[in-house]
Amino acid sequence: MSSAMIPYLHTAQYYETDRMGIVHHSNFIRWMEEARMDFLRQQGIRYSDLEASGLISPIFEIRCRYRRMVRFEDTVAIVVRVEKYTGVKLVLSYTMTNEESGEVCAEGESTSCFVDPEGKPLSLKKEYHGLHILFENLI
Amino acid sequence: MSSAMIPYLHTAQYYETDRMGIVHHSNFIRWMEEARMDFLRQQGIRYSDLEASGLISPIFEIRCRYRRMVRFEDTVAIVVRVEKYTGVKLVLSYTMTNEESGEVCAEGESTSCFVDPEGKPLSLKKEYHGLHILFENLI
Amino acid sequence: MSSAMIPYLHTAQYYETDRMGIVHHSNFIRWMEEARMDFLRQQGIRYSDLEASGLISPIFEIRCRYRRMVRFEDTVAIVVRVEKYTGVKLVLSYTMTNEESGEVCAEGESTSCFVDPEGKPLSLKKEYHGLHILFENLI
Amino acid sequence: MSSAMIPYLHTAQYYETDRMGIVHHSNFIRWMEEARMDFLRQQGIRYSDLEASGLISPIFEIRCRYRRMVRFEDTVAIVVRVEKYTGVKLVLSYTMTNEESGEVCAEGESTSCFVDPEGKPLSLKKEYHGLHILFENLI
Repeated sequence: MSSAMIPYLHTAQYYETDRMGIVHHSNFIRWMEEARMDFLRQQGIRYSDLEASGLISPIFEIRCRYRRMVRFEDTVAIVVRVEKYTGVKLVLSYTMTNEESGEVCAEGESTSCFVDPEGKPLSLKKEYHGLHILFENLI
Repeated sequence: MSSAMIPYLHTAQYYETDRMGIVHHSNFIRWMEEARMDFLRQQGIRYSDLEASGLISPIFEIRCRYRRMVRFEDTVAIVVRVEKYTGVKLVLSYTMTNEESGEVCAEGESTSCFVDPEGKPLSLKKEYHGLHILFENLI
Repeated sequence: MSSAMIPYLHTAQYYETDRMGIVHHSNFIRWMEEARMDFLRQQGIRYSDLEASGLISPIFEIRCRYRRMVRFEDTVAIVVRVEKYTGVKLVLSYTMTNEESGEVCAEGESTSCFVDPEGKPLSLKKEYHGLHILFENLI
Repeated sequence: MSSAMIPYLHTAQYYETDRMGIVHHSNFIRWMEEARMDFLRQQGIRYSDLEASGLISPIFEIRCRYRRMVRFEDTVAIVVRVEKYTGVKLVLSYTMTNEESGEVCAEGESTSCFVDPEGKPLSLKKEYHGLHILFENLI
């Protein structure tokens, strides 16, 4: 039912490369975060507003499979999808494609939960119903 | 047969924190690299020497489960173990413990392979026999 | 004589914030690099092409004055200007403005030189005449 | 009157290198922070305790001159000195030396001020007298 996400674009920066001449693998984890925030923005949600309202969404587990090297000045298109949503846990997948070659360069997955500023778990269903419905519709 | 690794210690830096007030999750991936290099050093291997000799070991897959928040100036002790070694693929696990509390704060896993500077797969068994034996003994 | 540069835009990422709740000061140095590369791109130059041709431009000195805090999801517009160019040394200034408030949040300056892959100084005037003329016209 | 600081040691990590094969210049700014925190620790001050007590010390200006390249697995010794202290402003210098060669690889300078959590300037002389005396003695 959800409309497709416009891929998030990130151009690899010089400071993201390492001495192997390619983007250091840790940066893909950061790009996943950039794409995640953009994904929310495309749904009309600013993550900073969520935090201001008392909702924090820490990462529980992160995973990335590297398929092809990404080099300086390559542009990577990232598509985020809701893989699983239980009301207390959200699993997103990230498909990262090299814009020029069209080849998948990495595939990621993040699991996050929802807590209040004191770290207590929040039920989106009860306390952020609009967000709850949104994630349900995006599965 | 392998002697136990001396845990690698990393003290969380200010620049590694984020506005949640804790260490940003992407940094654990970098700490895993620090611990991996230290693990090799404890076996008498400098990774820069390996690279100079024509062996590169890119990361294939990375994974981290976050169990407890780490804060600025916390010291994390990281123990690396060889989980699997096939001659062409190496799986390492990382147990990260908060020095003060003694609690596990994160558990990581990396899968790496071995290639030459052109990206062609290398067989450690044939071309780096000493390293091959070392990893076999560390399982 | 040079046409004005289109400001380079960078939206502050979550992983760029620190526990003070603002963007960590070290990231502005990285944004200066992003803007510098974009500045070259707007002149028709890809820095990766320069490097491939044997020209490397390491940073000699960097400087940044922080005027106003930048927060997560703020967009910063960066304008790069050639302050000084001697044929062997290039001084660029960076004016970073918060898009929403219109206020200057930081002012940077970088000094770089030009070397070959072995680290020997290159004279742009002799060996990269087009680039030399370009920088001269941009002062 | 102040006892000499024990140099802070940082070993260059793989993720700190860039495709030039050397440590990316932005990381020196982060090493300066590491050394600054260690410098305070050697004076018996944990920066996290300062923050907990309501004192925040944002960076006003940063500067670094790069003299020699630093490579992966090089260890850099950093000595911090108080250059200037006015009660509201603190200027520190950082001399970074390559442990192996003994050569200075970079020289940095930071200017910081002291504010409360709302960003209002604090007078150390009045509100943190012990710290005030300490900095005065370290000039």
